[in-house]
Amino acid sequence: MAADSKKSKGIILTGHRPTGPRHIGHLVGTLENWARLQDDYTCFFLIADLHVLTTDHEHPDRIQENILSVMTDWLAAGLDPQLATFVRQSALMQHAQLATLFGMLTTVARLERVPTYKEQVQQLKLNPSAGLLTYPVLQSADILIYKANTVPVGEDQLPHIELTREIARRFNTLYGETFPEPEGLLSKSARLPGTDNRTMHSSYGNSIRLMDSPEETTKKVMSMYTDPNRIHADDPGTVEGNPVFEYHDVFNPNKDEVEDFKTRYRAGKIGDVEVKRRLAEALNQYLAPQRERRAEYAQDPKKVLKVLDDGTEAARPVVQATLTEVQRKMGLL
Amino acid sequence: MAADSKKSKGIILTGHRPTGPRHIGHLVGTLENWARLQDDYTCFFLIADLHVLTTDHEHPDRIQENILSVMTDWLAAGLDPQLATFVRQSALMQHAQLATLFGMLTTVARLERVPTYKEQVQQLKLNPSAGLLTYPVLQSADILIYKANTVPVGEDQLPHIELTREIARRFNTLYGETFPEPEGLLSKSARLPGTDNRTMHSSYGNSIRLMDSPEETTKKVMSMYTDPNRIHADDPGTVEGNPVFEYHDVFNPNKDEVEDFKTRYRAGKIGDVEVKRRLAEALNQYLAPQRERRAEYAQDPKKVLKVLDDGTEAARPVVQATLTEVQRKMGLL
Repeated sequence: MAADSKKSKGIILTGHRPTGPRHIGHLVGTLENWARLQDDYTCFFLIADLHVLTTDHEHPDRIQENILSVMTDWLAAGLDPQLATFVRQSALMQHAQLATLFGMLTTVARLERVPTYKEQVQQLKLNPSAGLLTYPVLQSADILIYKANTVPVGEDQLPHIELTREIARRFNTLYGETFPEPEGLLSKSARLPGTDNRTMHSSYGNSIRLMDSPEETTKKVMSMYTDPNRIHADDPGTVEGNPVFEYHDVFNPNKDEVEDFKTRYRAGKIGDVEVKRRLAEALNQYLAPQRERRAEYAQDPKKVLKVLDDGTEAARPVVQATLTEVQRKMGLL
Repeated sequence: MAADSKKSKGIILTGHRPTGPRHIGHLVGTLENWARLQDDYTCFFLIADLHVLTTDHEHPDRIQENILSVMTDWLAAGLDPQLATFVRQSALMQHAQLATLFGMLTTVARLERVPTYKEQVQQLKLNPSAGLLTYPVLQSADILIYKANTVPVGEDQLPHIELTREIARRFNTLYGETFPEPEGLLSKSARLPGTDNRTMHSSYGNSIRLMDSPEETTKKVMSMYTDPNRIHADDPGTVEGNPVFEYHDVFNPNKDEVEDFKTRYRAGKIGDVEVKRRLAEALNQYLAPQRERRAEYAQDPKKVLKVLDDGTEAARPVVQATLTEVQRKMGLL
């Protein structure tokens, strides 16, 4: 198990809430990045199932199914049990215990200023739960219990990393040097739009999922949003902000072809169908390695869950060691 | 161990924050009551060390010392490891884990309306911590993880029991019948004033502690606050609101003597010294049984802590069973 091996660049904690199948946006925006980091960092990849409950505790039937699909997608994307440790958050109570202790060091006022909280309160238009307010405290515990120094995240999560750093500093000041102040690591890739040109989101039905077959993928590509002002194949079209071309930029390795398509599209010299067909081919080719890896796991859910359970058990002594140190320093042992 | 025995009236969870030695106010107001309940209820007595941190996380050196003194006082007061189970809150992470889950079902707005929170925010005049805000959620978890139906508490804690009932109801509605809706059980005895006639409180230096020797007790009684308007022994004195007579009412079993003292005090026919000397005698006699029990434990801290550790281990399967049931129902298992 990778849990106790030490790698040169330090320790990474990152993860996903198991909200459903991963899509190609997750792949190019996040998972490929995580997969690359496995060689240089001791990586803990967290299935953050407790965090799911902060926004949806009314669908208990979905969680296990979603954990299985996220884990399968992760493994297909190249996250590797030989190189990294996979952790089920709710199975290691040390996360919640440490969050409870960190809650003593974090003011309500500070949490109310967290941008994601403010946004969600506005969006949800309902009374926020204590769980939603203290979400970033639990997240700080998730990170610091592994003494992670690096946290690959999306830009919206940077304020949570800042809070994590504050908690680490506060703890170190009160009880002596214990935690690193972790840094957020942003992915370089731009955000991929959905097939309808809105934000790609599983619940919008506008995502190409990693589990989709080549045929499903082709079908979704063929019905993608393009330039809405272009009626006929000989109308001049717009390439900028056109998701078909944004996808070509990411997935089509033949850059000359992409440039040729763009030129002809602007001039009204190529039909959408041809551009999309080539995109579908390129995308399916791009996804081939993850589909190959997936074959190993998709038919064997027990094997996938064993990776998660084995990782969780490998992480248990790691999180217990940190918790014991913390409880001793805070006077609880 | 008492943890798995079933008694006729159900299950009790109650406890103290380990803030320092218990005093005679705790004895007559609380501990004697708990001791009586041990025969009819399956009792869990909680050393709520996590809760200490909600108001003081800056004195880690004191907590273990205070746990030892509270446990010694409890055992001296007649709480009996043969009849009840003693639990160290921070050692059973199931409490914090369940509180984290309950936090998803409890709104911030609801917690901000809890009277003890509002009072403490006003008193402390500082930014309340998330731990202080969510204190009653952790307390609800403390109670419900034992499926307690009865919670002996002080009157100020009744709003917390109400919140506990709300959380139990909400959980049962969402996930099916799981928890009882516990009732608060108020002690009948009136609150004993301190030796200076203010509220008795360890930190005010106005308490007679259970660990005090007969000599210390006598000394404290002899310097008690009495009627401040009475200068000479032949001045008529006031009995009402005079702590010396309130103590006589509680601790002197010779009611005729107490009535005689009161009559003569009102008439200026008896000196404070005589009234206090008899109070000291009566009080020391009252405290004799707890001092006898104390002798067994006071010299042997290891024995005291073993009671707590054994109880905690006996409680572990109880709290794990509840947590497993909860996590299954919420979709985490």
